[in-house]
Amino acid sequence: MQIDIGNLLAANALDRADLDDLDGAVESAHQRIDDGRADDEFGYASLNLPATTDPAAIESAVEPVADSDAVLTVGIGGSALGAATISQALGPSETDHYVLDNVDPKSVQTTLSKLDFSTTAVNVVSRSGTTAETLANFLVVREAMDDAGVDWTERTVVTTGDEGPLRDLAHGHGLPSLTVPNGVPGRFSALSAVGLVPAAIQGHDIEGLVAGGQAGADSLAPSLFECPAYAYGATAYALDQREYSTNVMMPYAEGLEAFSEWFAQLWAESLGKDGGGQTPVRALGATDQHSQLQLYRAGPKDKLVSLVRVTDGPEQPIPETGIPDLAYLGGKGLGELLDAEFEATEASLAAAACPNVRVEIDRLDAESVGQLLYEMEAACILAGELYDVETFTQPAVEWGKKAARGLLGAGDFEEAEAVASKEQLRIE
Amino acid sequence: MQIDIGNLLAANALDRADLDDLDGAVESAHQRIDDGRADDEFGYASLNLPATTDPAAIESAVEPVADSDAVLTVGIGGSALGAATISQALGPSETDHYVLDNVDPKSVQTTLSKLDFSTTAVNVVSRSGTTAETLANFLVVREAMDDAGVDWTERTVVTTGDEGPLRDLAHGHGLPSLTVPNGVPGRFSALSAVGLVPAAIQGHDIEGLVAGGQAGADSLAPSLFECPAYAYGATAYALDQREYSTNVMMPYAEGLEAFSEWFAQLWAESLGKDGGGQTPVRALGATDQHSQLQLYRAGPKDKLVSLVRVTDGPEQPIPETGIPDLAYLGGKGLGELLDAEFEATEASLAAAACPNVRVEIDRLDAESVGQLLYEMEAACILAGELYDVETFTQPAVEWGKKAARGLLGAGDFEEAEAVASKEQLRIE
Repeated sequence: MQIDIGNLLAANALDRADLDDLDGAVESAHQRIDDGRADDEFGYASLNLPATTDPAAIESAVEPVADSDAVLTVGIGGSALGAATISQALGPSETDHYVLDNVDPKSVQTTLSKLDFSTTAVNVVSRSGTTAETLANFLVVREAMDDAGVDWTERTVVTTGDEGPLRDLAHGHGLPSLTVPNGVPGRFSALSAVGLVPAAIQGHDIEGLVAGGQAGADSLAPSLFECPAYAYGATAYALDQREYSTNVMMPYAEGLEAFSEWFAQLWAESLGKDGGGQTPVRALGATDQHSQLQLYRAGPKDKLVSLVRVTDGPEQPIPETGIPDLAYLGGKGLGELLDAEFEATEASLAAAACPNVRVEIDRLDAESVGQLLYEMEAACILAGELYDVETFTQPAVEWGKKAARGLLGAGDFEEAEAVASKEQLRIE
Repeated sequence: MQIDIGNLLAANALDRADLDDLDGAVESAHQRIDDGRADDEFGYASLNLPATTDPAAIESAVEPVADSDAVLTVGIGGSALGAATISQALGPSETDHYVLDNVDPKSVQTTLSKLDFSTTAVNVVSRSGTTAETLANFLVVREAMDDAGVDWTERTVVTTGDEGPLRDLAHGHGLPSLTVPNGVPGRFSALSAVGLVPAAIQGHDIEGLVAGGQAGADSLAPSLFECPAYAYGATAYALDQREYSTNVMMPYAEGLEAFSEWFAQLWAESLGKDGGGQTPVRALGATDQHSQLQLYRAGPKDKLVSLVRVTDGPEQPIPETGIPDLAYLGGKGLGELLDAEFEATEASLAAAACPNVRVEIDRLDAESVGQLLYEMEAACILAGELYDVETFTQPAVEWGKKAARGLLGAGDFEEAEAVASKEQLRIE
């Protein structure tokens, strides 16, 4: 990716001296990251995935279901968002990708009713093999396959850790299976089997995705002025320190809508710690100009807007029209209109002193998307160093997990008791 | 809807005395709103839609395309989000609803390639009839219909203002057409033809939607303790004054995902003014527990989390399993799991002193959804009174519109010149 941080200066959010100061911190952080990578330390190992992921092994594992007309991914959070991002960005494909990442009865039933299980590959993903939502959904899917007269063991691929119920299941039934890499938290695992299995079944170029990740790895350098990933991570951090506590991720490409969700997890779970961390906000250009831009320009000055554009895409001509008010559109293209809106929005934010960053990728292909994901992960890890937080854990979610397990009778958890004693003030 | 604000007290974000103070302001604001409604003033007229919208007239207007297999809505912002919200919440339907609300060439081409125009109703919506994205898309759609040998005048419904290019087109070709109601900004128009045309073509109960809106109107009362809509709007405002500047809208229902987008526009464009206004953040339970909850609990204490639940929905049993770690799931239902997660998350936020509100609706049917939309609009208008902003305008988006028009050669606009003089600091 390329980035342009000129509008941070134009909005007076940072000046050249700030950037020079920041660059010193980037150099130290890069050294720490490099050491972590060299030792394959927990989390930092994520940045080695382009070297450690074996696309051929993934292709080979999914070969038994490679002829599927659809892939159903059963996972949640980091076990779903990377795969969803990749298949949307590289799609559409002749092999549809469905994702069960919630336990809403109606939507699960609706999704299952669309599938012909005899030609569907089921891709179940959970590191522990015990994630409640994923395993509950998998049990439902398995029964639906039984009901459809399909042998689930013939059409299921498992990606899980070295141990646990899903690993046991894979062993017991000889299922095609892949391993969640050690030392790589879910939200950093898009460029491993966790994110690549559905893409492989869909026939996308997973070797290209990994090569793009490697290009991202090769782009890391000890100066923000030399490294787009670190420039993004460092300036986002610096802005948060200056009360720009919201990071709006706004791609101008429908194919990157899921990317924004993936980014939101990456940013929120990695940096939302110790009372700090930017709040990621998902937006989509040009659509959200008609929904959110009023707030960004005229509301609180607490936002960094990250505008993402794909520089080389298909065009769709707009037919000429004799209608005077619309004549200026005729002969242009939808892409040209989208580009004009991108640049107009960028300038309109700068004119209102709202800091914004331009992120560009060449095209929506395997290399560019793999590189984008890798570089955003590197940006996040760099920011984590600057914040000095534990980037790779998510301890605050444990409380709720225990409470839910307690409510469902899985054991005695004091957290579940807090639910029963909820303070009420109902208005009906 | 019913709401429970007990966890605002539990999180020590507000106390009873704060609520009593706020209640006095609500009484005055309600009076102002009531007067505005009585005079059908700009914006306030939105709250009269349940009385002024005629479902039978909409049904009658769409009758020529009522047999369609699909509806394609061409609109953006308030001309698309209400319709998308309603059709998702009440869906799935045998008549699919597609929305073109962006000018991404690839996604437009992908959507058009899925349609059989001979059985598709095209629903084009723009008050002015000149919205660039909508009209550009409509020109593309019209050409695609021509190319498919379909007479576009036979399958197009127009919803627009009393004047403008779309109105002229409707007159010139005798198209079925409806009028965007006067005095009702787009984001408040879901319960008019703007939001109801696709629902009518899909066979949803638009009379029920309007009746739900009327139930919302009947629920307005001059005290937050008596009126869920005002309780929501007033406490959200009061929290923003106390530095809870982010409002996370987190329904625990996939059918309300588009509702969150609709809410985000309502909140952002109406209240994002004069340097203030809460930033709406779209989230989805239970999925985003695995993505955003870490930040909500352990990040900055700047968030109100609005948890929405549908109390009466379908259930999907989880099959029994002999796997010890998962035995507790067997015999439960996915809905039961979702409910446990809802209550666990609510309690986990309270335990971390994160203020949260519980919003409940009875079911995902026409009445409940119509009421929810109406009451959230009333909540927003009430909040606008308390903020003392111009709730019904969105002046900050004009700058970018002019810049984009200038870039596309539609006239001389000084805003377009600012684009060319962008400050650059590129990192590659």
